[in-house]
Amino acid sequence: MYTVDINCDMGESFGAYKIGADEDILNYITSANIACGFHAGDPATMRKTVRLALDKGVGIGVHPGFQDLVGFGRREMKISPQEAYDITVYQIGSLYGFVKAEGGKLQHVKPHGALYNMAAKDIALSEAIAEAVYKIDPELILYGLAGSRLIDAGKNIGLRTAHEVFSDRTYQQDGSLTPRTNPHALITDPLEAVNQVITMIKKGKVHSLQGTDVSIQADTICIHGDGNGALEFAKKLSAALIEAGINQEKFSNSFHY
Amino acid sequence: MYTVDINCDMGESFGAYKIGADEDILNYITSANIACGFHAGDPATMRKTVRLALDKGVGIGVHPGFQDLVGFGRREMKISPQEAYDITVYQIGSLYGFVKAEGGKLQHVKPHGALYNMAAKDIALSEAIAEAVYKIDPELILYGLAGSRLIDAGKNIGLRTAHEVFSDRTYQQDGSLTPRTNPHALITDPLEAVNQVITMIKKGKVHSLQGTDVSIQADTICIHGDGNGALEFAKKLSAALIEAGINQEKFSNSFHY
Amino acid sequence: MYTVDINCDMGESFGAYKIGADEDILNYITSANIACGFHAGDPATMRKTVRLALDKGVGIGVHPGFQDLVGFGRREMKISPQEAYDITVYQIGSLYGFVKAEGGKLQHVKPHGALYNMAAKDIALSEAIAEAVYKIDPELILYGLAGSRLIDAGKNIGLRTAHEVFSDRTYQQDGSLTPRTNPHALITDPLEAVNQVITMIKKGKVHSLQGTDVSIQADTICIHGDGNGALEFAKKLSAALIEAGINQEKFSNSFHY
Amino acid sequence: MYTVDINCDMGESFGAYKIGADEDILNYITSANIACGFHAGDPATMRKTVRLALDKGVGIGVHPGFQDLVGFGRREMKISPQEAYDITVYQIGSLYGFVKAEGGKLQHVKPHGALYNMAAKDIALSEAIAEAVYKIDPELILYGLAGSRLIDAGKNIGLRTAHEVFSDRTYQQDGSLTPRTNPHALITDPLEAVNQVITMIKKGKVHSLQGTDVSIQADTICIHGDGNGALEFAKKLSAALIEAGINQEKFSNSFHY
Repeated sequence: MYTVDINCDMGESFGAYKIGADEDILNYITSANIACGFHAGDPATMRKTVRLALDKGVGIGVHPGFQDLVGFGRREMKISPQEAYDITVYQIGSLYGFVKAEGGKLQHVKPHGALYNMAAKDIALSEAIAEAVYKIDPELILYGLAGSRLIDAGKNIGLRTAHEVFSDRTYQQDGSLTPRTNPHALITDPLEAVNQVITMIKKGKVHSLQGTDVSIQADTICIHGDGNGALEFAKKLSAALIEAGINQEKFSNSFHY
Repeated sequence: MYTVDINCDMGESFGAYKIGADEDILNYITSANIACGFHAGDPATMRKTVRLALDKGVGIGVHPGFQDLVGFGRREMKISPQEAYDITVYQIGSLYGFVKAEGGKLQHVKPHGALYNMAAKDIALSEAIAEAVYKIDPELILYGLAGSRLIDAGKNIGLRTAHEVFSDRTYQQDGSLTPRTNPHALITDPLEAVNQVITMIKKGKVHSLQGTDVSIQADTICIHGDGNGALEFAKKLSAALIEAGINQEKFSNSFHY
Repeated sequence: MYTVDINCDMGESFGAYKIGADEDILNYITSANIACGFHAGDPATMRKTVRLALDKGVGIGVHPGFQDLVGFGRREMKISPQEAYDITVYQIGSLYGFVKAEGGKLQHVKPHGALYNMAAKDIALSEAIAEAVYKIDPELILYGLAGSRLIDAGKNIGLRTAHEVFSDRTYQQDGSLTPRTNPHALITDPLEAVNQVITMIKKGKVHSLQGTDVSIQADTICIHGDGNGALEFAKKLSAALIEAGINQEKFSNSFHY
Repeated sequence: MYTVDINCDMGESFGAYKIGADEDILNYITSANIACGFHAGDPATMRKTVRLALDKGVGIGVHPGFQDLVGFGRREMKISPQEAYDITVYQIGSLYGFVKAEGGKLQHVKPHGALYNMAAKDIALSEAIAEAVYKIDPELILYGLAGSRLIDAGKNIGLRTAHEVFSDRTYQQDGSLTPRTNPHALITDPLEAVNQVITMIKKGKVHSLQGTDVSIQADTICIHGDGNGALEFAKKLSAALIEAGINQEKFSNSFHY
């Protein structure tokens, strides 16, 4: 029997600005990465999103990002490991407040955008993030790009980790994501995207752009919560996984020590 | 035997901007109200200030304020009780992160500036703030202006509360602070300030501007951490209290259920 | 022959956050109030919106608001007249930059949200705003609520002013807007809204909620750029004005000294 | 007869936070680079600093930086040339507002911190910044690191440019600044700093760390406005230049077409 977690970024609305069909998408995912006001999100949105996730039994994750609201946390910033540690602790705490007030429990931490991408390659940044997570709560699970430095850093400090894969991105023969500058970076056909994911889960492999199969660990699948077709794809993926005999469960349920 | 808590706003530096002689002042106070990035403070400052307070055995408090950095949280904003709740939860959580990571424990919550003043008079705002504190942790102590609505709201929801008095402000015959627009609002003579505090603690009274004595409960004394003479006054007050036989202890130590 | 200006708030998107059908709405208005990054808007949005407005021959206005992005500038802040002056100068300048770079010219200034509402009643705030406008460029036109203190302040300092009326709001017998807390504050029937505007323009009167007719000067009509039906209403109003023989022109074109 | 401009960063205070001895330093410099609220500064500080500079006859420059207040604009951000253009236009405009309101005129633009350093090497960023300056006002002077890409970009688009040199930094044999990671990056002896500057001005050369003399054009000298000894050094430099027969004039006065 196969089991996988499906995660999605949530709570990215800000004040009068609305992004994402959070309430609907929550029906088709098992873990939510909730923005904490640095790159997106605000206190009211955090409260509402935490409440929704708890009501639907979805695992709650912190989604720390750069303090760059106008750039949505997608622009690289040259910060020190100490700064990475500090903004991670701050953002984990801020979401903890709402989760505690609503009677829930944090499940995981997944860095956002440029911080996620930089941490995937930079061991010092990754160690700082992993230390922040560990020092607040060693039971928290660290989500990172499958096979990345962030996963290494999490394991090294003693955290449980979840290897994350993408349904709508192609992979290189070294297991990395094809950069977005490459015209073949995205998988736009939903069926192809779903099949890539099923193969990853069942065979532990992904067919690279170069034509070779590469080993990959697929603990959790990242899907997107905004844009046209986001909800449709979430439904399609969920149904296809059921049909393929793959359980969908939040990572904290399926993890075996 | 008399006991009193001395609290001071701390951790108000921001990035390259430094305010306050925190490290020195911490030697003469028993509780610290730490800014959380909304009206002052930043993640690095929060971490350092929490560490200093723990090292010196000073009680750690959350100091939530309006999201108005350029106004230092001193400008009134017309927010809803729900918004007051949300910004309080967020800021408590953010400081909790650093306190947990450093191996400590939160002691109290004291709203800052305009939020403090508005909550003193507005019961709906006060109830929202008290609920935020209670839902995160019912063991937290709520600091508020002695005899104010905020203290009422805290008691009503079941929180421990600390009545706060000011050494350098005069009082009206109804027990309220003399508004700053009044030329006699401030007590500038350190000796007079110290004596007012000692009378409050020992007699439970303050001599009002109108000449009558007014009952007041003095659980904690607020002193200021910046400006000329802040450190000198902190030393002087501490010494005078010792001489007057008044113990200085963080409120969580002295509180009797 | 009657002439009126139709203005609409524009350029309120922020980073990844989109609000408003600006490009479409611009076809049915004559003046645009462009947000400047304090309550909404960002540099990229400002540049694009200025370009669009110039391409369509729409008058360009500065839309200064409180520095409260999460509250969209709709929450009252207790600021001093000096602070009102300073944030107005800053925001006028910031938009001036883009207008100059694109080869255009500023037409007007209209405060946003809570600043607009506070200035309507508070003469000191209004004088500060009017002074900011005048000192940067005495040719700029000041838009304010018809009959308000802001219009008075503008006239007193020597600015041209535009009395603004609302199509979708009811009026009180003293000529003020019915507060939104009143269930009859909004006019939801487009036909009724259009007719109210036509009567204002042709007769200089509005039928108050209390049943009496009140004198009102209608130099410019405010319409809304977001929400369902915003574009539909803009089209309907524009067509109805043409049918009623009312010219639509940006205020700087129709103003007679 | 030799002439040089002395520039200093100014107006970096923010709300309750004070940095720099601006009023005093202004007596010993000829051009001021005024922060515009992105990395430092706020509307009130901008107004006061512009007023002071005008009163003392000091040339007024825009000092645009990254929107990173907590990092003081010193952290590199990966922005597109379009984003660099947009934030430069916005910040030039914002300061223009205050300069216009106070009856003055902008002299120059000098990027701040990480933006300055990145622009020195990145031609696409530099071209975007130069275009922003040129499109707002082709009479503005662009200040950049002597011999850098920013100077090239300014010249190419048709702007006047000022080659900037540093008194307290050592140089490499290729004319670049010694990176701060090098223990010999800083010149801490005031006399040595002053002599380096005088040699640059009179001989057009600087003695590199490697021992060779390198050609350098010294149109304007950057001095620092905060920190211990900033004011003392400013006085010392000013006096030493007079003694060496070197005129101090704002760049717009001394520039010959």
